Amino acid sequence: MQIKVLLNEDEIPRQWYNLAPDLPTPLPPPLGPDGKPITPDMLAPVFPMNLIEQEVSAERWIDIPEEILEILYRWRPTPLHRAVALEKYLGTPAKIYYKNESVSPPGSHKPNTAVAQVWYNKQFGIEKLTTETGAGQWGSALSFACALLGLECKVFMVRISFDQKPFRKIMMETWGGKCVPSPSNETETGRRILAEQPDTPGSLGIAISEAIEEAVSDPTGKTRYSLGSVLNHVMLHQTIIGLETKKQLEKIGEKKVDVIIGCAGGGSNFAGLAFPFVYDKIHGAEIDIIPVEPASCPTMTKAPYVYDFGDTAEMTPLMPMHSLGHAFIPPPIHAGGLRYHGIAPLVSGAINDGLISPRALHQLESYEAAVTFARTEGIIVAPETSHAVAAAIQEAKKAKEEGKEKVILFNLSGHGLMDLSGYAKYFDGELQDYALPDEVLKKFLKSIEGLPKP
Amino acid sequence: MQIKVLLNEDEIPRQWYNLAPDLPTPLPPPLGPDGKPITPDMLAPVFPMNLIEQEVSAERWIDIPEEILEILYRWRPTPLHRAVALEKYLGTPAKIYYKNESVSPPGSHKPNTAVAQVWYNKQFGIEKLTTETGAGQWGSALSFACALLGLECKVFMVRISFDQKPFRKIMMETWGGKCVPSPSNETETGRRILAEQPDTPGSLGIAISEAIEEAVSDPTGKTRYSLGSVLNHVMLHQTIIGLETKKQLEKIGEKKVDVIIGCAGGGSNFAGLAFPFVYDKIHGAEIDIIPVEPASCPTMTKAPYVYDFGDTAEMTPLMPMHSLGHAFIPPPIHAGGLRYHGIAPLVSGAINDGLISPRALHQLESYEAAVTFARTEGIIVAPETSHAVAAAIQEAKKAKEEGKEKVILFNLSGHGLMDLSGYAKYFDGELQDYALPDEVLKKFLKSIEGLPKP
Repeated sequence: MQIKVLLNEDEIPRQWYNLAPDLPTPLPPPLGPDGKPITPDMLAPVFPMNLIEQEVSAERWIDIPEEILEILYRWRPTPLHRAVALEKYLGTPAKIYYKNESVSPPGSHKPNTAVAQVWYNKQFGIEKLTTETGAGQWGSALSFACALLGLECKVFMVRISFDQKPFRKIMMETWGGKCVPSPSNETETGRRILAEQPDTPGSLGIAISEAIEEAVSDPTGKTRYSLGSVLNHVMLHQTIIGLETKKQLEKIGEKKVDVIIGCAGGGSNFAGLAFPFVYDKIHGAEIDIIPVEPASCPTMTKAPYVYDFGDTAEMTPLMPMHSLGHAFIPPPIHAGGLRYHGIAPLVSGAINDGLISPRALHQLESYEAAVTFARTEGIIVAPETSHAVAAAIQEAKKAKEEGKEKVILFNLSGHGLMDLSGYAKYFDGELQDYALPDEVLKKFLKSIEGLPKP
Repeated sequence: MQIKVLLNEDEIPRQWYNLAPDLPTPLPPPLGPDGKPITPDMLAPVFPMNLIEQEVSAERWIDIPEEILEILYRWRPTPLHRAVALEKYLGTPAKIYYKNESVSPPGSHKPNTAVAQVWYNKQFGIEKLTTETGAGQWGSALSFACALLGLECKVFMVRISFDQKPFRKIMMETWGGKCVPSPSNETETGRRILAEQPDTPGSLGIAISEAIEEAVSDPTGKTRYSLGSVLNHVMLHQTIIGLETKKQLEKIGEKKVDVIIGCAGGGSNFAGLAFPFVYDKIHGAEIDIIPVEPASCPTMTKAPYVYDFGDTAEMTPLMPMHSLGHAFIPPPIHAGGLRYHGIAPLVSGAINDGLISPRALHQLESYEAAVTFARTEGIIVAPETSHAVAAAIQEAKKAKEEGKEKVILFNLSGHGLMDLSGYAKYFDGELQDYALPDEVLKKFLKSIEGLPKP
């Protein structure tokens, strides 16, 4: 009955994997407002220097501090499951594995980097962190990590999600975090946007601007900003997912994975599972590696590779990435975590180097897959994760058509217990598919006109 | 950094422990409407015969079928954690351990018996199960188990909880279950009660009556009823919790536990952890074993030991138990799972034999403990579980006062992610403590006047 693979305490990975030095085409550097590469000093008001060093590191392996491991160990290593019941339901010759990141107390993979970031900030003498959150997974994870390590936490939550998901705020408050809807009246950026568009649903780009503004304007200098995705050091911290998975596959003698899948908003859960396997692909392994996004926010499949700001108010450095433009306001689909305008530079780099093959899926197919998964494997996944499930089912059906015994692996990045309203709307027939029209994309892309090109 | 103890697949317990044959005073038998002990045949319209056999079994050990183990194995063995951060926060010399049942997909210990009951019903040719649910943990667990094993599921949910927690219904529906508020218009009992008290908040007793009525009135005979607590076979299925815990304690060389704690509504999570240790106590071990209930529903600490019905409409056999009377309508406290009028006969028997020492706690102290726990150990517990956390903190403080290095163990029966509205009311100062007044208790106890005495 081997359908779940665990690791012992002494098998937990003790180093993170950094893809940056292994990318065939080196990443272009982030640029400052003057169009020149930024220096670490320029990031110092926003991030602590120890994380900035990780952000620009050219080391392939970076040690995980023991105190971080001790906290991660509360729920890690996470189980690797084989989806035997789903395979049987689909009648596929493929083997489907999933890495279960939903077992963390906040319910997703996000605490992997939240704990690390809070720890490094604490080491640097920081006492308070600010951040943004979309669906709420990241804000919850950072509140959780701040509680365990004794830092203050302030979360700007995209207004439409704040209104639709009141329980996320309570969750953050239970861990001692403070959560306000964004745009808020607490920052200049927020006040300006509210004055212009009082009814705006908000966006991650706006919330990031607010969180950075609050961090850099603290006169004591004891506040920094924390980002839950996109940046190199966030991808780094998440690689513990893929590194554990490799050990687990080895433990059961599974020598080769054919397809690896993760949903991708900013890219962190996908990168966390996939990057250690991208290393193998760079060195000759044949693997299809698929980041999955919603067709309504087609950052990887339709948006150009450009230099763009990470936020709406143009406070961040310019980053080389596929981007829908920092003025992007996402359509209200239910996978709140997949609505960011950009995608991590490292993921963008892997796309450009042909190492990974993005796919865009519609939400109805994704919810259908999630319901099938719940009724076979028993876990109700997050709306974001449903995109990975749907792609895994597509691949399993393809393997059936081709009669191939493929090995498919996907990241179950989080559970959906805090996001059941999306399921309700799906059951009630209230959801529709929506692909971002080219003319709308063009409009948003005006926000990057005149910026440098990578 | 040993703060979490896992078990391997081959260490999962392969038998359940039945306390019944070991109780010093044998349990009085359930009685039929004629006041005579009921026979297994009389229960046959309600339960399948294989579960009835377990209900009346005098065997100490009962084999767990392999197919049940295979499903439980998806999330079991559950971790045993040491609450190092909580200990440090309290400055106690005590060691605090907790068994983490919140890691099951529905989020509580309830699937342990749900999976077993659905499997035995399926073996018996049953195609549909009906049940009741209070806070929603049980209805979710049964829907989950029915999905995995392919049975239909119909859940009558206490109306006040149904209205306060709309997401529970969606959760059950995602697993394919049907959930209606109780009292409903779908049964004679429901219609009668709605006619008499259109605004009733409902109760577990009413919901049980409705579920039994729907089961026994199916003309095909393919429907049975399933109960998530109280009965002997339910306690039996939950003992896997305590049996795993014993192996885990042994694994880390923890030879003696001084205090064992579980919250108790019907009694199943408490019994599951505690009964294997009650066996040790019967054989001479010195252990304080504490089931904890809300002061607002003081079944164990204030109610008499009587014969009473399990439901409001007097459809069940008379069971020997501590009971507030089957007419009991609970006050609206937030630990919805701890509001049943009775407590399991096996738990009642253990109380009467002096083997366990019930305690009643108020909800404000319980929520305060839960918030402390969330901010130290990181897990947001269910409102029910908060009572166990509060008692564990009481015991840890007592150990500090006495300067004793006690070992305290409690059952973390479920997470609170589906019950955050209670936390919100606690933070907003909307909750009050309420102890059931003697005169109100007397009024409810009129419903058992004239019934036989155990």
